Amino acid sequence: MRTGNRWRWVGGWRAWTLLGLLSGIACARGAGAPGGLEVEEAMVGRFLARATHSSLAYPRMAELCDQFGPRFSGTTNLEAAIDWAISKLKADGFEAVRGEPVMVPRWVRGEESLEQLTPRPMAMPVLGLGGTIGTPPGGIEGDVLVLTNFAELEAREAEVPGKIVVFHPAFTEYNEIVRYRTRGAIEAGRAGALASLVRSATPFSLQTPHTGGMSYEAGTRRIPHAAITVEEGARLLRLQERGMPARVRLSLGAKSYDEVESRNVIAEWRGRERPEEIVVVGGHFDSWDVGQGALDDAGGCLAAWEAIRLLREAGYRPRRTFRLVLWTNEENGLRGARAYVKAHASELGKHSIAIESDWGIGPVKGFKFTGSAAAERQLSAILPWLKRLGPFELRSGAGGSDLGPLLTAGVPVMDLWTDRRDYFWFHHTAADTVDKVDPVELNRCVAALGIMLYGLGELPEPLAR
Amino acid sequence: MRTGNRWRWVGGWRAWTLLGLLSGIACARGAGAPGGLEVEEAMVGRFLARATHSSLAYPRMAELCDQFGPRFSGTTNLEAAIDWAISKLKADGFEAVRGEPVMVPRWVRGEESLEQLTPRPMAMPVLGLGGTIGTPPGGIEGDVLVLTNFAELEAREAEVPGKIVVFHPAFTEYNEIVRYRTRGAIEAGRAGALASLVRSATPFSLQTPHTGGMSYEAGTRRIPHAAITVEEGARLLRLQERGMPARVRLSLGAKSYDEVESRNVIAEWRGRERPEEIVVVGGHFDSWDVGQGALDDAGGCLAAWEAIRLLREAGYRPRRTFRLVLWTNEENGLRGARAYVKAHASELGKHSIAIESDWGIGPVKGFKFTGSAAAERQLSAILPWLKRLGPFELRSGAGGSDLGPLLTAGVPVMDLWTDRRDYFWFHHTAADTVDKVDPVELNRCVAALGIMLYGLGELPEPLAR
Repeated sequence: MRTGNRWRWVGGWRAWTLLGLLSGIACARGAGAPGGLEVEEAMVGRFLARATHSSLAYPRMAELCDQFGPRFSGTTNLEAAIDWAISKLKADGFEAVRGEPVMVPRWVRGEESLEQLTPRPMAMPVLGLGGTIGTPPGGIEGDVLVLTNFAELEAREAEVPGKIVVFHPAFTEYNEIVRYRTRGAIEAGRAGALASLVRSATPFSLQTPHTGGMSYEAGTRRIPHAAITVEEGARLLRLQERGMPARVRLSLGAKSYDEVESRNVIAEWRGRERPEEIVVVGGHFDSWDVGQGALDDAGGCLAAWEAIRLLREAGYRPRRTFRLVLWTNEENGLRGARAYVKAHASELGKHSIAIESDWGIGPVKGFKFTGSAAAERQLSAILPWLKRLGPFELRSGAGGSDLGPLLTAGVPVMDLWTDRRDYFWFHHTAADTVDKVDPVELNRCVAALGIMLYGLGELPEPLAR
Repeated sequence: MRTGNRWRWVGGWRAWTLLGLLSGIACARGAGAPGGLEVEEAMVGRFLARATHSSLAYPRMAELCDQFGPRFSGTTNLEAAIDWAISKLKADGFEAVRGEPVMVPRWVRGEESLEQLTPRPMAMPVLGLGGTIGTPPGGIEGDVLVLTNFAELEAREAEVPGKIVVFHPAFTEYNEIVRYRTRGAIEAGRAGALASLVRSATPFSLQTPHTGGMSYEAGTRRIPHAAITVEEGARLLRLQERGMPARVRLSLGAKSYDEVESRNVIAEWRGRERPEEIVVVGGHFDSWDVGQGALDDAGGCLAAWEAIRLLREAGYRPRRTFRLVLWTNEENGLRGARAYVKAHASELGKHSIAIESDWGIGPVKGFKFTGSAAAERQLSAILPWLKRLGPFELRSGAGGSDLGPLLTAGVPVMDLWTDRRDYFWFHHTAADTVDKVDPVELNRCVAALGIMLYGLGELPEPLAR
């Protein structure tokens, strides 16, 4: 069913995999095993058949999301979900299953409201940003000043004191617009604003507020900081342009408490030859405190988990150790990623690679990698096997946030790369729910991770630093 | 800029119109005026230039939506917006501007909540459906029974008494799925349910509840009836499939009061030769009580209004009378449409046609028409002029709801036909807001309506019945 070098997607996943097994693999075998990588065809076939027909990734992701809901750092909910994961991983036959302690912030949203007082009384959707201070009881009341960028804030700085600043930048891309969320309170606070509001960091909205991380800066006055919807930001800007800026009352019940203990979940499938060499793969198990954290990142966690579980079930024991890491507190602290590096400092030199799946489950495109050119050459031996799943690619430039501390410590890192175009519609919202994950796409992520793990498990030498 | 018979859309609206004026119109003149319709080129040119460059449709639609917000039947808000429209129409130079009285229902939503009690306490988004009864104070508590269609309700009727029924049909198309909203309370009430919930009638959701009309039936017990989100319907179904159906508490503060007076807004541009012959064009001025009713139907109202205003401004006085009708109470009663037919019974025989613009502002495709074959032949004389705006079509089968009573009374009817594929994402929600309307598309609707009106205004004979 190939046409030239491209798959023709006839009959979906099932046809694709079976034909892959029948024709694609036979074809690659004809071409010989690439780069000295010895591959056991039957093992790969058994794994892919399982990833297609008996994957538990979707039902388990749904069970996790439905049973526990959001898994926010500092909540008993997250810890109960971690207990669930540890118990399932043990039952699955993983080795050295444990929770490794991590101290995490405990920020509690509390009751929130945003009301327009004039020109027309009405309620607006609002979500405090993670870590914001609360307002005094009864809220903060002020006239609104809508600004579309930081340059305007500077130009109109004299008007800011006593106002509630609204940042309503146009959406260009997430990494561009998100700075109004992360730095908005700092910049508006410095200029003397009472509070700051920021349009949600999304190109599309159904009156959907998005939460997310934010910062204060030492020496700058801290002000309450919350997200409003794209619709309300646009409306407040129109009112201002008509010369009748709104007056609003913002109430945030947010409070920060002492840090509490959470855990990174660790589970291994030990290496048959060099168990001390470690391939880390995982996602972050925590989520924001709204929605179900299905795309961000229950799906990513289950994809990594299931890839190892199904390789094991197919009878595979890797040359080196696979270590599943489900990081805690990615969303509002990255404490899990930092604690992992600290707790495992002595063995980081033997970490062959660390892979994270945190791009949102969607059409899988391949992997992104950050490491040496020599390592890239080693990985190229795995690429032909990956390409059996479709036109998958290996590209440079991995950036999963839990990988940052590992990369700094010298470990090569890799992201599972998906092309979920509408990801930021759901990101950090009440609408990041189970139904946003397509089971077929999730299983393709499992398959891609499994093939990559198989290759990394069989490479004759660990990846060059 | 034509390629064969198709426009090439280079440079957007401005290029399109200017080139239309320079080449398209000249081209059509070369071909002679079709079907005996005498067309004054310069007039059409002036109108189209205005529709492109100085249309007030968008800013007025935005002003209406922002200043008054939702315009629900029975509210002072709707009546204030009607006063605004009457005042603007007079200032525009329309003739015979007035509000014609219509008695409308007064249903007030009140406070609403839906909580899951078990297996995990959580709040769910909810919107009572228009006309539902309220719950007793403290709400109604019950175990949930999720059903995916009415056949299942019949098959499992014995399980229904004492339960809160949730209808979670798959989305096929709006007209199919909407019957669970309109008839859900009747069917569930007959089977003995405590209350009924229905997944919102949309193919896409960001935890977005959609309100809308519903019915009770004489002789069937009335139960509270509300919409939940697609996400929560799917979640409740998953819980049930896992053998742990949820228990919920529904509180609806809804109340119905005595009818109150509202108004249809009427404004005319009187005919120069046969003023007693009437071409009705309009939309409905009321909306649901959430969001801004921008797509449904402020945009449609302003498109019709602006088409007449700009024809007048271009110096055009039609052979027969243009009558703008902004119906009240389309959403939850159709009282405006019925009252219009009753109040104008004596002149309906002289109604040449009635046009409604209530498809949501989006890419305009043309018009749909219901009337005699002879009338269709007359309209075909206008088609070449319409095609100057793009590949517009005239099709059979108009269905705008305010047109129903007119059609029954024998008046030929026509819908402005747009192709807004995501219309039902926004329909009857808090997210039907100004930003969902594209100003360029709105002005193309104005242009299409204007050309159609010009043709209908100049046809030598009124449309054949």
